[in-house]
This record gives sequence, C-alpha cells and structure tokens, in this order.
Amino acid sequence: MLGLALGPDGRVLTEHRVSTPQVDDEAAGRPRGTAVADAIAEVVVEVATRTGIEDLDSVAIGVGIPGMVRRDGVLVFAPNLHGAIGADLEQLVATRLGRAAVGIDNDANCAALAEHHFGAARGVEHALLITLGTGIGGAAIVGGVVLRGSSGFAGEFGHLMVDPTGPRCPCGSRGCLERYASGAALHRQVTEAIAAGRLEPSTTPEQLLDLARAQHPVATELVGEFCWWLARGIANLCCCFDPSLVLLGGGVGDAHDVLLEPTRQALIGELEGGRLRPPPELVPTALGSRAGAIGAALVGEQRSAR
Amino acid sequence: MLGLALGPDGRVLTEHRVSTPQVDDEAAGRPRGTAVADAIAEVVVEVATRTGIEDLDSVAIGVGIPGMVRRDGVLVFAPNLHGAIGADLEQLVATRLGRAAVGIDNDANCAALAEHHFGAARGVEHALLITLGTGIGGAAIVGGVVLRGSSGFAGEFGHLMVDPTGPRCPCGSRGCLERYASGAALHRQVTEAIAAGRLEPSTTPEQLLDLARAQHPVATELVGEFCWWLARGIANLCCCFDPSLVLLGGGVGDAHDVLLEPTRQALIGELEGGRLRPPPELVPTALGSRAGAIGAALVGEQRSAR
Repeated sequence: MLGLALGPDGRVLTEHRVSTPQVDDEAAGRPRGTAVADAIAEVVVEVATRTGIEDLDSVAIGVGIPGMVRRDGVLVFAPNLHGAIGADLEQLVATRLGRAAVGIDNDANCAALAEHHFGAARGVEHALLITLGTGIGGAAIVGGVVLRGSSGFAGEFGHLMVDPTGPRCPCGSRGCLERYASGAALHRQVTEAIAAGRLEPSTTPEQLLDLARAQHPVATELVGEFCWWLARGIANLCCCFDPSLVLLGGGVGDAHDVLLEPTRQALIGELEGGRLRPPPELVPTALGSRAGAIGAALVGEQRSAR
Repeated sequence: MLGLALGPDGRVLTEHRVSTPQVDDEAAGRPRGTAVADAIAEVVVEVATRTGIEDLDSVAIGVGIPGMVRRDGVLVFAPNLHGAIGADLEQLVATRLGRAAVGIDNDANCAALAEHHFGAARGVEHALLITLGTGIGGAAIVGGVVLRGSSGFAGEFGHLMVDPTGPRCPCGSRGCLERYASGAALHRQVTEAIAAGRLEPSTTPEQLLDLARAQHPVATELVGEFCWWLARGIANLCCCFDPSLVLLGGGVGDAHDVLLEPTRQALIGELEGGRLRPPPELVPTALGSRAGAIGAALVGEQRSAR
C-alpha cells in the first residue's frame, strides 16, 4: 500500500510504500481488519513524520481500499483483502489515529477523483476510469462528481457479465468482463496459447505485449481479442453512462501504446448508434499508480469539509 | 403517440392519443422528420384547445421520443421512427408551434423524471427505470437527477451486450439484453417453444404469461428464463449505478404479478457481493403508460426555466 502527503496544489510532498498485510486476524484472536488498519495507521504516521506534520488533527486523512466500501466505511467485499471483509475500516483507522473520522472510499473511485482534479479528466462532466490490474477497477464521473451509488458500490465494471457461458469468476458469477480484459485475462490467454503450441513455453504476459509491439501474428491476434472484449465492455458502459471520455489506467493499462488503438477501432464497431454518434475519447490516465492515494487525500478533504 | 396537459400538481387535465406516422418524408420530397413533427404539433394544439389554453406561449411544452435524442434536439437513432432519424425534431416542432424552443428528451428519460416527481421513485437519490415494451427502454436517476450523459444517450439499457454469441439485434450488435428480456424476447420464446412442440400452436405471449400464472410447467420455465436474463441485466446495472430502487414498467412490465418475484429471486444470486449487500428494491412503475408524456411536460418546464 502507498501512503502520501498531498500539498494544496496537488503536489506529492512525501510518499511511503509498504506491503499489504495478508494475515488471518481472527485466527490470531483479533477483530477482522486489525492488521490492515494497523498498517494503514502506521503508513499515515510515517508519512506525517517525514513531512514534518506534528499535529495529525491539522490535516485531512483519506484511505482508498481495493474493494466494495460501504458509505459508512465498512469493507463489504474485497477478493484481495479477505482478512478485513466485514470490518468497519473507517472506525478502526480513525481510532488508531485518535480522531473521529477519516475519509474512505474504493481505490478506483479515489483515482477517478484525482484524475478529475489534477489529471486526464480535469473539468470533464461525464467520464469513466477503467484500471486494468490483476482484475478491473472502475469509477464513473457523472455531472462532474464521482458516482458512489446508494451503498457506495457503483463503478464495479469488472463484474459486468458479458458471457453467460464464460469462465467462473472469483466473485461467484461467470463470464465477468475482468475474465477477458485484465492482467488475469492476459495470463490466461498466454497459458492457453502456450498449451496449444502457439507461443514459446516460457512466454510471459509482458513478453506477449512486446511481441504484439513487434507485430508477431499470434500476439497481435491475442491482443486484438483482449481489446475487443475491452471495447465491448466500454460499449456496454456507454449504453449506461454516455461518457465523452474514458481513461485507461492500471498496470496492464500502462501498455496503452499497444492497447489503445485496437480498442478504439473495435469500439466504433460495437457502440450502439455506431457512426451516428461520437465515440468517447479513449486516453491513458495521467497520474499513474499514485492516482488512488492522491484521490484518497481528496476524499479525506471532502470528509473534513462536511 | 400520447399528448397531455399537466396541471401544476401533476394532475392530467386533458389527453389525446394519435397513431405515430410511419411515412417516408424524403420519398415525398419533404425534409426528414416532417410527418412526425407535424403530428406532434397537431397533438399539442389539440390538447391545448381542449384544455382551454389560448396562448401556447403561456405554457411549457416538452416532447418525449422513443430513440437516442441528442442534447441539441436531433434524433440520432430510433429503430421505430426511421423517417425522422437525423432530423432536428426540437427545431421542427418549435417552428410549427411558433416558439423558439421546446423541451425534448428520450421517452424513458421522461418517464423516469415523472416517476421521480410524482410516482414510485419520489425522492429516491439512485434509481433505475426499465421499461419492457417491444424492446427495452431505460433511464438512470443519479443523485436525484435523470442522467443524460455527454450527448444525451445515457440509459440505453436494452443494448447492453450479455451474450457475444447471441441473436442479432436490429441495433447492429448481437446478444443485446433486449433480445432476452422484452416483448420481442417473449415472442421468440413462444415461437421456439411452439416449434419444439412444448406449447400449443396458437399460444400467444399474453397466454404464456397466463399459463405461468396457472403454474403450467413449460410456461413457468420460460418465464423463469426471461426473468433470469432480466435479473442478469439488472445485476450488470447494479455494478454500474448501485441503485437502491429499480422500477419495472412498459407493456410487458405490467405483468409484474408474474415477473417481479422470479426476477427478485434471480437477482440475489447474480448481484456482485451477493448476500453481503442489500439488493435494490424492485417495484412496478406508478404512472403507467402516461409516465413518458407526464415527464415530457416536466422536461418542457425545465427547458422553460433555463
């Protein structure tokens, strides 16, 4: 996890990264979420110390979490933070920092807020953020505001079902978009192509992208397939939100030199209303892997302003 | 098409229905949209006369159109109004009524606005409307406001692709939600079941619903399939919008006594986060087939207020 101190102009003053604890709090006789909340509080204190902040009450504090965060601060579902599911993370973190409340939201929502304030979606009324990591993170900016929805679970684009007979998803459903267009999907494509003798046995997903850059035919075909699914997902989102801008970010999304153009091409064919409507602009995020943490600081500020 | 005069309290003062013209304006040497705009203007004048309105400038006027209406009033796409596609309907109607502007929006957006003001979504911050007619109409209420999106095309839920190998859709894509959960879908289910010898040759879609009410096993199975797809579509929309309420309306949606409960049951199994999150409430619309026209009047009022 990444902690940072954000200046009023959006400049990052200090940052500090630690690995996310993966421990079983309950087996250790502690309430769920203890280890994660401890780690978050330690990162906050470390960043504050390095920045020369003596009074934590003098600054806004926000937290971005990769999972479904309820508006009241409870983590409802998070495939990669199992030990903290069900925990009131806002309360746990706030208590450790000796304050009544901190801001808390889903990390993709935080990243979208940051991109809207300081990044590639500045001033845009209707935009979407899609982060391609191991899975897909998502957020919608609607009328210039990040959409949280009734409980706080809006923007879960990775779990749009796009194929009822598709592979099982850890979420319990099958054929979710992130089975086809994410780091995990790229990994599956490579594994299957190796098994079919279409790629060298040692090929990695990173090498697949490099091969596509070099116009290797199998790699180009597989990346084209990946981009078709991504475009199909974006077309579905356009039916919902009609954005003028779609931001692509995350570890896999960083390969935008090889992903953006095929996705743009596929999108024109998949959009309802096709060539009769303007397709959304498709661009990379501007703030990179810090976007979530920068946005978390902004969420903290919004919370303090209440 | 339905025209009506709306009182300030939401009461319908007068109404007048005429059939929608299906003529080829261009073949007749007239600009596209002429016949539709003429019919709309005539309905407005007729309703005003019957209501005793002498000066059309003294009232707000709005129009709801079943299609993709651009924010500037141009009809971009409408499978059932071919002769008017590409026409600046706002301009054509306003000119005929001797005024600078009228309000215009997609009919499902209008219906959602009406349900939010006077109907089943009164005061709800995050709600969706799904109208099941021949196809699917949709609209999203986000933060208490009907979402139009960047161009005006938000809420086109019928064209969410849910099966890449599914049947072709008139929109040009395949496997769109409205191929599985709409009046046309019900018709296809009945036709296929008759061909397979599972239903009597003369069975109509209405009779299928009646048979399901009587717990006929084949009808129950087919309606269950229909409701699974509808629930799957709603689950996808929950990933996007996280509404607390979903309104079901339209001609087919009126069969809510037989459709709502199976859809609710299926939805719990399909929602991301499953039983860890509250499912949205699923209820019938309150204003019925007048909702679109009532909402159009409200759109006219919003436009006048600008």
